[in-house]
Amino acid sequence: MNFDAMTAAPVNSAPRRAETLAALKAEERKLMTDRELIRALETLLQHADELDEKTRREAELTRREALRLERIPADALAEHNRLLGVASAAWREAKKRDDFGLFRPYLQGVFESSRRLALLARPESDPYDTLLDENEEGMSRAFLDPFFRGLREALVPLIGRIAKRPKPDASFLHGHFPREKQLAFSRELMGLMGIDGRRCALGEAEHPYTTFISRNDVRMTTHVYEDRVHANMFSILHEGGHALYELGISEELEGSPLGHGASAGMHESQSRLYENLIGRSRGFAELILPVLKRYFPEALGGVSPAEFFLAVNRAEPSMKRTEADELTYCLHVMIRYELEKALIRGDISAEDVPRRWNALCGEYLGIVPETDSEGCLQDMHWGSGLIGYFPTYALGNAYGAQILAHMKKELDFDGLISAGNIEPITLWLREHIHKYGMLKTPADLIRSASGEDFDPRYYVDYLTSKFSKLYRL
Amino acid sequence: MNFDAMTAAPVNSAPRRAETLAALKAEERKLMTDRELIRALETLLQHADELDEKTRREAELTRREALRLERIPADALAEHNRLLGVASAAWREAKKRDDFGLFRPYLQGVFESSRRLALLARPESDPYDTLLDENEEGMSRAFLDPFFRGLREALVPLIGRIAKRPKPDASFLHGHFPREKQLAFSRELMGLMGIDGRRCALGEAEHPYTTFISRNDVRMTTHVYEDRVHANMFSILHEGGHALYELGISEELEGSPLGHGASAGMHESQSRLYENLIGRSRGFAELILPVLKRYFPEALGGVSPAEFFLAVNRAEPSMKRTEADELTYCLHVMIRYELEKALIRGDISAEDVPRRWNALCGEYLGIVPETDSEGCLQDMHWGSGLIGYFPTYALGNAYGAQILAHMKKELDFDGLISAGNIEPITLWLREHIHKYGMLKTPADLIRSASGEDFDPRYYVDYLTSKFSKLYRL
Repeated sequence: MNFDAMTAAPVNSAPRRAETLAALKAEERKLMTDRELIRALETLLQHADELDEKTRREAELTRREALRLERIPADALAEHNRLLGVASAAWREAKKRDDFGLFRPYLQGVFESSRRLALLARPESDPYDTLLDENEEGMSRAFLDPFFRGLREALVPLIGRIAKRPKPDASFLHGHFPREKQLAFSRELMGLMGIDGRRCALGEAEHPYTTFISRNDVRMTTHVYEDRVHANMFSILHEGGHALYELGISEELEGSPLGHGASAGMHESQSRLYENLIGRSRGFAELILPVLKRYFPEALGGVSPAEFFLAVNRAEPSMKRTEADELTYCLHVMIRYELEKALIRGDISAEDVPRRWNALCGEYLGIVPETDSEGCLQDMHWGSGLIGYFPTYALGNAYGAQILAHMKKELDFDGLISAGNIEPITLWLREHIHKYGMLKTPADLIRSASGEDFDPRYYVDYLTSKFSKLYRL
Repeated sequence: MNFDAMTAAPVNSAPRRAETLAALKAEERKLMTDRELIRALETLLQHADELDEKTRREAELTRREALRLERIPADALAEHNRLLGVASAAWREAKKRDDFGLFRPYLQGVFESSRRLALLARPESDPYDTLLDENEEGMSRAFLDPFFRGLREALVPLIGRIAKRPKPDASFLHGHFPREKQLAFSRELMGLMGIDGRRCALGEAEHPYTTFISRNDVRMTTHVYEDRVHANMFSILHEGGHALYELGISEELEGSPLGHGASAGMHESQSRLYENLIGRSRGFAELILPVLKRYFPEALGGVSPAEFFLAVNRAEPSMKRTEADELTYCLHVMIRYELEKALIRGDISAEDVPRRWNALCGEYLGIVPETDSEGCLQDMHWGSGLIGYFPTYALGNAYGAQILAHMKKELDFDGLISAGNIEPITLWLREHIHKYGMLKTPADLIRSASGEDFDPRYYVDYLTSKFSKLYRL
């Protein structure tokens, strides 16, 4: 229903769908908080050491969710979900018409409602910490504040040094690239990535994202901008990374509550790995440019792989998070992180968002959006109730860099990519990450895949090394 | 889920969706056969004369469905629905690959399973009569055999006389008509028909059809063939007629079991009314040709409205039911009616279908399909369990002609169309048909809209008069 709502449904369908989703959520809640289920889970967990790994993890995760739901009254949850249905529709309209006022009351409502639910679920915790932990197990402001500070301290000077260097030419990425051709290219790129069209479909949505119904039913979306060629290509790489994760989960986990990616952050590590670590590598420029030239010979005919590589790595502050370069990306996340903290605490209200957004944009990125559509209305997340979710994007980047550093010890990563042989990379990821689904925690997965605990320095080192070389610092 | 399955879902999603649909159907059955519900309905109906019309009709229809479901064991129903999920997917593949063998076992299974359910629901009745009545209240072989015979006796000689006349030129309808332009034209045509895009979306599907989720959420689909311009146009008119019916149902019936069109046949009367009685009229040629010329100036620039009118009314036996002309259309329905009767009786089995199909095609239409894809695999109906449904298409044509004859006493039908003023026609239909939803039976609706009982002679007269003039017989 969410995929349908974002790709196909007429706008006036929203109120009825919101009611339907609320009714389904209420049914789910009834099943999840059933006393007999909880008793059974507790009995199982009293014998945790006699259980196999899969059953134990299923029981633990299910009990945790059951206890969370038990604390939230059914009415409050139904009301929240009904609100989200209407709020997402309002966001879509507001972004389309560039009219923040249409979204403002819903934005305020979603934050207030999310705060209320967080306090019901864990009365003893700070509500934003609760939301962070619900989105990525173990996450908190105490972890993220220094994490973001560390990134900022490393990246801001680097960005400053790059700002003084001449910018590579990226003008050939802009022009007229007809929608139909971009969509045909998208399908060829999905093929190159090894995405099985019998198990994964592509739709078009205002904001690209991927939905997972089962390991045999994944839905990617993209958004084609006819005036540029790279936005859609990186969308496909990014969403394709999400898709490959779900498509690679072990068949034994089909239908189990463990049959999805380990966490939002781990998911993002895979999408960013395909988007940036593969898609913005020198080898990928060698591979993809001849393909793009077949679709757009006039616009790209005279471009060399070296020029293409430089252009797609042009580091320059811009408005759109989803199109930001690798260096500035996390600064976009920090804007949202700061706003979420303030909105949940009640330090600011929804009406302050455009002003605060623009101010933080100026502070971190040195630029200010001209419209709310390209500013605080650009992301669908808040309208959908995804609060405390943005930080997982930054975590994902850092997870990915650590995974890559280890993978490179075993595979000729760059050689494989320039040869168009992505499959060994995907198979390595399937073997070390994908197949486990939620069987391991994100921290365990990082440890088993890379041989050590999560360490954000891999990410800082990757960016520093790549961009120092690129800009001859 | 059905709309998604036909427009967007990857093919391997079918088994899981079939399970999900079966589970939902089982839940619906539990609710519908609840003893307390049935007792409440019976209490209500013991006081039927104290109830308002809406409540009485709701209670009657709900009890009828509850009693039907009560007689069918839950397992049998779940199994049937699971089969339909897989069978529709198999049909799609089979049609795509032109491989009847892929569909054959599922086709056999669907007919056997439908026969079993029909005998469970009404052990005392002939199973095909039960299926016919479930699709259109009051319908039976005893009614349809003479109905079809009457049509055949009137139409076959007419077709024979036309076959001797020179054929109008329709070659300009064929050529290259790019998909994107046809889709843009489709949206303009929907606007001309007064279809509200905020309440109705358009998708693309192998076999065009329309899904009704609520009066604020209708989904049309079309199929674009780039080598001809008229197929998509008539699909939009046809599906648009279905959409306008649902969009016009009284708001008071929203959420009620009466909040959909009165019957399959009545729905088809509306779709065929827009497709043929409006879309193949002289006035519509005047109206739509200048619009088409804007999209396809090269192909249609030199065509006059008179030539266009003749071309879209070219009466000539062809393979595809959905693209058949008005005269031969009911012969396509008769092929399916005869096959269904024989399959349900067990006189033939699924493996005989291609041979029997082609033989009946030769007998009624004088032509034989070259492939099963354009023959017995052309329709999605059987794979979806729609057996006993095809006859409603013929009934719909006949209902529509009777409604039109009466409407013409009150409206300047042709003048309104050529002036591009479709709205008064739609408002007349809303007032006399659409708004009632299922509040009246099909027979009552025809009576209240036309002032007399259903009479198929209106249909025969309409065809005879129109085609005698067209072909100067």
